[in-house]
Formats: sequence, structure tokens, C-alpha cells
Amino acid sequence: MTGTVASPARLSKRIDDGLAAVERAMLDVTDSQVEVLREASRHILSAGGKRIRPRLLLLTYLALGGDDIALAARPAAAVELMHTASVVHDDINDHGIMRRGRPSVNAAWGRTFALLTGDFLFTAVYELMAPYQELNVDLARAATALVEGETLQASAVKNSTFTREVYMEIIALKTAALFRAAAVIGAKLAETDRDTIDALADFGYKLGLAFQIIDDILDIVADEESLGKTSGLDCRQGRGVAVALRGGNGNGSALAANPVDAIKRQAMEGDTIDEARSQAGRLVKSAVDALSVLPSTPAKAALEELALTVIERDA
Amino acid sequence: MTGTVASPARLSKRIDDGLAAVERAMLDVTDSQVEVLREASRHILSAGGKRIRPRLLLLTYLALGGDDIALAARPAAAVELMHTASVVHDDINDHGIMRRGRPSVNAAWGRTFALLTGDFLFTAVYELMAPYQELNVDLARAATALVEGETLQASAVKNSTFTREVYMEIIALKTAALFRAAAVIGAKLAETDRDTIDALADFGYKLGLAFQIIDDILDIVADEESLGKTSGLDCRQGRGVAVALRGGNGNGSALAANPVDAIKRQAMEGDTIDEARSQAGRLVKSAVDALSVLPSTPAKAALEELALTVIERDA
Repeated sequence: MTGTVASPARLSKRIDDGLAAVERAMLDVTDSQVEVLREASRHILSAGGKRIRPRLLLLTYLALGGDDIALAARPAAAVELMHTASVVHDDINDHGIMRRGRPSVNAAWGRTFALLTGDFLFTAVYELMAPYQELNVDLARAATALVEGETLQASAVKNSTFTREVYMEIIALKTAALFRAAAVIGAKLAETDRDTIDALADFGYKLGLAFQIIDDILDIVADEESLGKTSGLDCRQGRGVAVALRGGNGNGSALAANPVDAIKRQAMEGDTIDEARSQAGRLVKSAVDALSVLPSTPAKAALEELALTVIERDA
Repeated sequence: MTGTVASPARLSKRIDDGLAAVERAMLDVTDSQVEVLREASRHILSAGGKRIRPRLLLLTYLALGGDDIALAARPAAAVELMHTASVVHDDINDHGIMRRGRPSVNAAWGRTFALLTGDFLFTAVYELMAPYQELNVDLARAATALVEGETLQASAVKNSTFTREVYMEIIALKTAALFRAAAVIGAKLAETDRDTIDALADFGYKLGLAFQIIDDILDIVADEESLGKTSGLDCRQGRGVAVALRGGNGNGSALAANPVDAIKRQAMEGDTIDEARSQAGRLVKSAVDALSVLPSTPAKAALEELALTVIERDA
């Protein structure tokens, strides 16, 4: 193993460099000649976000002895762009008007341009990853899983089949697959062995499940705190829920104001939130266990810390 | 050069085999575990369509001596899926309710699932092409161009900047780039030299421009039944045009019923249709001239015939 980063300070510097390169790569590949696409992409990208997926990819790469952070930054940018593309399209389907503290692309540019901006971000991922062959296969499968997860979610809401089991299937597809791909790509870039790749895949996958469970819990808590601020949306979702809880009425358009979040709320109320939090905790513990294949390095410690922030975050 | 198909009958058989393999590849890669995605994909794919892009790719490959039609079928399927994905999203933005003689995905499954089905078809392309490296770069750029073209079109309508020049820029991006990529990929798969690739790129590009010009003429002059897709939406588009011709009102939502076709109609009325037809004819002639680099084979003759059908078709 070469290039293992030995000191925490040096690791921190490399991650900062890597994440800065990720930002540059994302802006570079979305610098379209078409003004709306360029501006809408910058709007959503420059609003920030946790950047947990590229961080996961970069840390995995470094933890396995990778030493060319610029090499890892491109696929890390692709993973974050993929997530961003899905977010832009989600906000169309879910009528989300705020994202990352700003108006959603949908709210600012309208549905037509939001749809095209999401498509554009997808094609930017495609361009970024086109030369990568095997790594690209990993990301491509995660992309398909992501769309399948979103679709399964919308179907489950529409058909009132949103059970706990379906929920787990949904988050495995829509979130855990991309976390898994980020870890796998980081591991493969570091040219490690199959067993280590599998262990990191397991880490990424479980971390992704935990991340989404906590995300959904926060979505409920945040809604309760902000009652009255987003009253318009609450009302609409309330009506949507009422329809869904009657078992659906077979009329897709009546459910067009997708009540996903509200359905999740119903599934998680009461003891369920505590239970879900425990489940997320168990998943993170199991994810961290998978890291036992790694040598003790600051990058390994940083991966463990990343896993803990997933369950301890409050935003 | 090896494997050049010598007889027209044998060529016809190989193209049929190739196109059948394209259909199988498209159905295979869209065979999702998620019912809506699988069914909506089959709905739009099994409705047929002209398959001109995969035909172009396969013929180019054969004309340059390629002899493994199965090898070329996968990228040909990717090119057609890319086109299909864009069509599904177009029908959302343009409120198209008919496509290929059937209800559009949008009309049959609603906007949410149409958006996700389009995304899914994009990710299917991504999966199909992930292993191809350089060829994938060609297709990825065409994918970006396609989305840029659609966006430029929507922007030009919204901002009342839909001139003849902008129109040519739009169709170069949204149509000619993918035709070009199909020809380039076919040529590269046949392992030909750079000059020949460039000549085929030129052929594909000009053919794509001519195809779109004729498509837009047909949209004005042909009836919906023979086109198999929504052509009119006259009233709504008429209102949209009226707004646009007043110089726009700065209110995006008033133009949400995208009056693209009507704007094109206005641009093409009177002499303009004849003029546009002449332009398409000149482009096809120039495209065919580019084929002079090819040896005389049934495949070359079939490419010339393909070019002629583009301007002679009435649906």
C-alpha cells in the first residue's frame, strides 16, 4: 500500500483539496453554452449541500492508499452530480419549492426548465464518466437503482402499498445504491483486492440506508418545527395523505401533489421514530464493523467519523 | 477491409438481424423490477418508430466492413433509447398526448411517471454504454447536445428569440448531434481511419439536420393520424404564439404550454416551407457527397437510400 496519508492534518488538507476539485469539476462540466442550463446548474450546485457522497468516495480512496486525489475527484463529482440531478427532478414531482436553503430549480425556473436541467445534470455525469469503463458500470447501475427507487416510492404512494418492507426496498434503491457505488469506486480507484472492495461496498450500502432513515426522520421533525411557515405545502400534503389513507382512489391526478413525505410520516409516527433511529444506529455500527479490513489510518478514522455524523446530525 | 456485405439480399438480412438485436437489447436493459418502468418502457418501445438512428449506425458499420452485427447492435440500441428518453420528456414539456400512434407515456401514466420513465431510459443508455469508453464519449456529448438543444428551443420560445438562425442551432444540437454520433460510432466500431470517420460524421450530421427540417414541415402539413403523434394543439399553441409575437410578457407561466410547434409554423409559412424543403434537399445531397469515401457496396447504396427517404417521407 502506497501513499497512505499519515497525519490527520495532512488528511484534512487532502480532503479539502479533493472537495475543491470536485466543485471545480462539477462547474466545469455544467458550463453549458445554453444560459438557463448553466445558471440553473450553478444555482443548485453553488448552494452547497453536505457533499457526503463525494467525501465518502475520496475518503475510501485515501483509506486504501490512493494518493492521486485529482484522479478521484472526477468520479466523486459525477456521484454528486447524479445525486443533484435526482434532487432537481424530485422537486418537480414532489412540488418542492425550497432546496439547500434556496428556491428549488423548479420554483425559480419552472417545470420545463427544471426537467431539462435535471436531464442536463444526468448527461453531465454521463460525459464525466464515459471514459471509465468498469467504474462507470458501477455508477450506471446505481443510477438505474436510484430512478427505480424513486419510481417504486411514487407507485407505493399511489397504490397505497407503502409498507415498512417496501420503504426499506425504496431506500436501498434510491439512496444506498449510490452510497455503495461511491465507496466501491473509491476502493477500485485505489486498486485494492476484491474482499476489500466488498467490505467497502457493505460500508457504503449500510451507511446509505442509515442516512436515508435519518433524513426521513429529520424531515418529520423539521416539518413539525416549521408548521405555519410552509403552511401551503402542509395543507396540500394533508389532502394528499387523506386520499392515500382511504386506500387510494385510482385517480393518479388526484395524487399528483405527491404526498410521499406525509406517508413516511404516517409510517414513522409514535414509537416508530425511536425504532427507526435505533435501526439507523445498528446499521451504522454494522457499517463501521465492515471497516475492520482497513489498516488504522487517519482516513479510516475519518470514515468512522463520517458514519457517526450520519446518525448524529440534526440537519 | 473484411466482411463487406456483397449482396443486397444478404445486406437486408443482416440489417434485419441487427435491428432485431437492437429491439432485444432495448427490452432487455429496460426489464426493470419496477412494474411502471418496465411497462411504460415497453409501451413506448414496442410502438415502433422509424429506427432511423440505429439503422444509420448499423449501415455505417457494415459499409465500412464491420462484420459482427451483434457487436454494433448494443450501441445502436443505446442511440435509439437516448432518442426515446428525450421523446418521453418532450411529451411532458410539450403536452404531447400521442406518440407513435399510441397515448404518450405522459398521457397514459401521468407526468410523475413519465418523468421517471424518461430518466430510466437515460440510465438504461448509461448502463448499455458504460463499458465503451471512447464510443461512450461520443454518445455522451450527443446526449448533452440533445438536452441543450431542447433547452435552447424552450428558451427561444419563452424569450421570443426564435429566429431562423436560432432554429438551425437548435436542430443541430437536438437532432443532428445524435445522428452524427450514430454514424461516428458505427464507423469507429468498424475500425476505420480518421478521415473516413470525419466523412461519416459529416454525413450523419447533415442527414440529422435534413431529418429535423422535414420533421418540422410534416408537423405543419401532415395530419396527426399519419404522424402518429400530437401535431396540433392548435388553440393552445395559437395563444402561446400570440403572446410570443407580442415580444413576450416576461411571465414564464403564461408560456408554460410550450408553443414550439406553432412558432415553427409561423417561421415556415408561405414560401418558407418550400424554401425549407429545398434546404433539406441540399443538405441530403451534401450528405450523400460525403459518402464518396466509401467503396461501392450494397451498404453504401443503402445509406444513400436512407438519406433519400429522409426527404421523401410523408410521415
